[in-house]
Amino acid sequence: ASSLCLYRWYYSRICQWGLGLTIAALLLLAFVERPSSLSVSSDGRHRSPPWEPPCGFTESIEMVCLLIFCLDLAVKSYLIGWDEFRKGKWLIGYTVVLSFSIIDWVLSVSMVCDERLRVRRLLRPFFLLQNSTLMKKTLKCIKRTLPEIASVILLLALHLCLFTMIGMLLFAKTDDPKRNGEWELHFRDLPQSLTSLLVLLTTANNPDVMIPAYSLNRGYAVFFVTFSVIGTYCLMNLLTAIIYNQFRGYLLMSVQTSIIRRRLGIRAAFQVLGCRGAQHSTEDEQVGVDAVLEAMSRVQMKTYCRAAITTEVQRYADVGHMDREQFRKIFDELDKDRIKEHPPLPQYNSPVLQRLQMIFSHYYLTILGNAVALANVMCICTVLVLNSEKSTAERDNFLLEIINLCFILYYVFEMCVKIFAFGWRGYLSYRNNIFDGFLTVLLLGLQILIYATYRLPHAHWDPSSHLMSLWEMIRLVNMLIVFRFLRIIPDIKLMALVASTLLDLVKNLRAFAGILVVVYYVFAVFGIWLFEGAIKPPPEMSVISNTTMENITSNFSMECGTYEQLSYWSNNFDDFAASLILLYNVMIVNNWQAFMEAYSRYTSDWAKVYFVCWWLTSSVMWVNLFVALILENFIYRWDRSHSCSVTDVERIRYETSLQLIFK
Amino acid sequence: ASSLCLYRWYYSRICQWGLGLTIAALLLLAFVERPSSLSVSSDGRHRSPPWEPPCGFTESIEMVCLLIFCLDLAVKSYLIGWDEFRKGKWLIGYTVVLSFSIIDWVLSVSMVCDERLRVRRLLRPFFLLQNSTLMKKTLKCIKRTLPEIASVILLLALHLCLFTMIGMLLFAKTDDPKRNGEWELHFRDLPQSLTSLLVLLTTANNPDVMIPAYSLNRGYAVFFVTFSVIGTYCLMNLLTAIIYNQFRGYLLMSVQTSIIRRRLGIRAAFQVLGCRGAQHSTEDEQVGVDAVLEAMSRVQMKTYCRAAITTEVQRYADVGHMDREQFRKIFDELDKDRIKEHPPLPQYNSPVLQRLQMIFSHYYLTILGNAVALANVMCICTVLVLNSEKSTAERDNFLLEIINLCFILYYVFEMCVKIFAFGWRGYLSYRNNIFDGFLTVLLLGLQILIYATYRLPHAHWDPSSHLMSLWEMIRLVNMLIVFRFLRIIPDIKLMALVASTLLDLVKNLRAFAGILVVVYYVFAVFGIWLFEGAIKPPPEMSVISNTTMENITSNFSMECGTYEQLSYWSNNFDDFAASLILLYNVMIVNNWQAFMEAYSRYTSDWAKVYFVCWWLTSSVMWVNLFVALILENFIYRWDRSHSCSVTDVERIRYETSLQLIFK
Repeated sequence: ASSLCLYRWYYSRICQWGLGLTIAALLLLAFVERPSSLSVSSDGRHRSPPWEPPCGFTESIEMVCLLIFCLDLAVKSYLIGWDEFRKGKWLIGYTVVLSFSIIDWVLSVSMVCDERLRVRRLLRPFFLLQNSTLMKKTLKCIKRTLPEIASVILLLALHLCLFTMIGMLLFAKTDDPKRNGEWELHFRDLPQSLTSLLVLLTTANNPDVMIPAYSLNRGYAVFFVTFSVIGTYCLMNLLTAIIYNQFRGYLLMSVQTSIIRRRLGIRAAFQVLGCRGAQHSTEDEQVGVDAVLEAMSRVQMKTYCRAAITTEVQRYADVGHMDREQFRKIFDELDKDRIKEHPPLPQYNSPVLQRLQMIFSHYYLTILGNAVALANVMCICTVLVLNSEKSTAERDNFLLEIINLCFILYYVFEMCVKIFAFGWRGYLSYRNNIFDGFLTVLLLGLQILIYATYRLPHAHWDPSSHLMSLWEMIRLVNMLIVFRFLRIIPDIKLMALVASTLLDLVKNLRAFAGILVVVYYVFAVFGIWLFEGAIKPPPEMSVISNTTMENITSNFSMECGTYEQLSYWSNNFDDFAASLILLYNVMIVNNWQAFMEAYSRYTSDWAKVYFVCWWLTSSVMWVNLFVALILENFIYRWDRSHSCSVTDVERIRYETSLQLIFK
Repeated sequence: ASSLCLYRWYYSRICQWGLGLTIAALLLLAFVERPSSLSVSSDGRHRSPPWEPPCGFTESIEMVCLLIFCLDLAVKSYLIGWDEFRKGKWLIGYTVVLSFSIIDWVLSVSMVCDERLRVRRLLRPFFLLQNSTLMKKTLKCIKRTLPEIASVILLLALHLCLFTMIGMLLFAKTDDPKRNGEWELHFRDLPQSLTSLLVLLTTANNPDVMIPAYSLNRGYAVFFVTFSVIGTYCLMNLLTAIIYNQFRGYLLMSVQTSIIRRRLGIRAAFQVLGCRGAQHSTEDEQVGVDAVLEAMSRVQMKTYCRAAITTEVQRYADVGHMDREQFRKIFDELDKDRIKEHPPLPQYNSPVLQRLQMIFSHYYLTILGNAVALANVMCICTVLVLNSEKSTAERDNFLLEIINLCFILYYVFEMCVKIFAFGWRGYLSYRNNIFDGFLTVLLLGLQILIYATYRLPHAHWDPSSHLMSLWEMIRLVNMLIVFRFLRIIPDIKLMALVASTLLDLVKNLRAFAGILVVVYYVFAVFGIWLFEGAIKPPPEMSVISNTTMENITSNFSMECGTYEQLSYWSNNFDDFAASLILLYNVMIVNNWQAFMEAYSRYTSDWAKVYFVCWWLTSSVMWVNLFVALILENFIYRWDRSHSCSVTDVERIRYETSLQLIFK
């Protein structure tokens, strides 16, 4: 009984939230730890030395987190018992990682924070993985897909090697120096040819790599086009197909497993409750309604599910007991979605008020509101276009301010009128209104602040005396108005479907986002470890010329398209935040060869391995997983939303089988 | 009866092939017509004036094609009758396009080929579309998808506009010139901001666009990352999902329609045959076996299908007639795939020969062959690496030649031995062996040619006296050897599945390839019309410095990343072939902004509309269609190939329903 209590306490919401917060705190430490990311810019040319935490500050936070994890591990192993503990690979891994981290921590404290290698940082994402069932499942799914992915990657490698060899044969050095352009720039030796074609596989150097050969002879384009069509279009998309295919099967099975588990749980609950109410049983097993109701009142579940099940159970109150089939059936309520009901409109007695309520609750008011919001955005746009070349002093802020004021007053009016028509609770029951109202109140507050600070009638003020200048305040107001314009989305039907799919996606994305965090974390820590301070920006630039335009001029001495010429100095591995952005830029793929080339030039050619690994993990694996997720989600949602409107026989048959699968 | 004869003749293979050839000839005229693509290079700096066909040459070919189309139209309209003709939109379109083309042709001949506008060129792809049922179906499918695509594109446009406004507000001109980098380069006015973010949506300017702001403050990265994640990852992939979803449903329905049509045809055939054999019918309708057999001998179908059906029919020979159900069942044979049988191994009498046959037909011989091929490729690779920096004279071609000879002799030996073991027909019944044998024979021929030309014992020869130098011949041999290495693919199981999916894809791709051809054709002709000769490469370069290295040096006076600095001169709209390659480069997306920027600079800002339209059509629409096709194909094939091995209940249930759908 005490262990059951502990179990309930451990899996209570507070406890799990606490654990999640601890993990988040531990992961976020990477931003503060040396090399700390707490500087305005990551650009080595003009960044102030960041605030470095004193030794022992991050370490003590870390120790607290680790101790909480120890406690967590102890509770978990106590709860599931020693036999299960030995079998679970994740728990054994947890123990190993935890003890290793503590040993590493002790070492690092004993060296007074002067260590170069912080291996435990690499291991931190493990805590995140270990804590989420969904992520573990997704990882298992990815593991299952690996053989097929490996076969495509093997095919890609074969494709790459064959084309590299054919390319080297095709663009070999000839006696005529005029015809050596391609050889000189892209096919000089094996590593260079391999890199050129690998980058072409990602399309990141597409027209450039073929230009020297193509401008000599059109025929050479065939080589590059064939390479891209087979590699980029066919093989890469086949990877998407494979991942989607595997993923489709996996979701199906995991959902079925969880349904079977729930069935088992319900069956067990029936058995237990049946034993307690043994006096009722005659020949068949039965449970008493009182026992079920008592159990229901203690179980943790969503309130509307509980209410629905309790109502169902009370239908058997006059019989006093229910058999197995009936017991199973009442839990079908869990599968039903909650139907959202809006509170009724408030009743007014005066006929004038009723008339007004009818007008204001009409759909046309929303359309008018959208039109006004559009007008406001257009207005801001016009002012922006007119002001784009003017300096701050030349801009006429007053006019814009007064226009904004009018619009914001209309918004406030619209909000009040809607609250009047729908009532306070009715207004808030629409998610759209919450978004709208929140922004309106914020805008009103900002406007009041502006008037309080600047007292507009006095047209001349000292711009330096205030925290924010009038122009910046108005800029903020304008951004909020533009953002508020998003309220039109739910009013356009197809856009609403698409947008709600996106919102749905965000919910289902947690496991993927978690894995993305893990992958980014490991690669960023690894990157800092390998490349910290590898690229030193030229110091004289930060002294003499600082503006971008001048940089461009002074960069003309460098070769075009390189890291230095593009002044990518702020993309480096000198701190955690900067590494994340660099990794993101490589994930986006465009121009990733500039980073790869620069780091392999400043350190060694082996740096390419790091970048290719990251490209494979992020852009090939993760992006394809993401596409698979979007496909899965959209198709499921589409089938569900069209089940009523389309009477197509095939579709319904298909759709119901899908619904059975995914429920 | 004569019209039936005409029908059979019109739909015979020869006639349809002839029509296809005519369409191909008409389309290929674009390469020859002025501006003709018959020059070695498309680079304006060093291209010789291309061969221009004399006036009347292409025109006469065109007229012949048009006359053939007229004949085709006449036959078609005669065959389907006037009532049907009036209803078919495609046929009316065919008439209109054809008459318009002829009028345009007459005009152009009367102007002695001096016209600027050739509108009929734009209309030519219509003939391709009109001739293919599959393409018309696919077009209909795309048309059905358009509303959903439009909603996503609307959402994308909203996303783009909102972010443009927020970006303009965020990066507005400030008083401090040091902080104006972002404004100056990317957010100067509304069109520029819109272009910057549109290009960012395609990721083509990814790190560059954020560099000036990001190097000032890390926080600005959030703006760009949010934009890319929502736009590029979510919305663009949603487009893939939508297209795939729609496409999935469409294929299903079109396949079902064709099954229903075939059923109807079989039922009608039964009725007709039943009428002819009316003397047999007692109370139920029945057909005589003789009548069926006679009809079968005249029908056009695949030989193995006909054989199977005839065998089936002959089982009823003793009864002499068959009822409706039996008649329907015999045509199920059409759905079965042909099981390929290899001819039996030849029988040898001598025990030594039998022993040898057993050895040579063993699987290990194939593996050994693969190993030898790998060794040969490795050898070539080593020589390539060693030779990469050497000039032609320094290379030791003899050694390589002798190594190649040894390997090729082994290949010939392998081929002979396999022919001995499997027999001549058995050898050719494997597709793999055909590939292998063809390349081996080709290689042997080349080797003999090399020895005949150079007589290797005489080590010194005059390189200029022969058509191809020894080095070029060896290069060709090496390429063929590398290409031959592809024979290993079918021996690796997973790779074989992936590769066969790709091959399957090529079969199913015809409709898509056709639409791609249409789209490319129309845009290329339109592009030539709009932009021919718009960009003139600097003439002095072609005189003074011609090598690529010197170009790079002399290009330093231009801004990096522009069309001029990257010397994209060969990518232009000056002839048809060059436009195709330019359009392909824009489809690949990387660096497409360079083309867009250059053409809008040399002509007018409206050129951007052309490029954005092409981007939407090719990269957004067509690539997504292609991904949908790959997904469809792979998943279907995967399900079919795993139906025997995986005993998973869900999968088989799912799979059989899919098979029913797609058969």
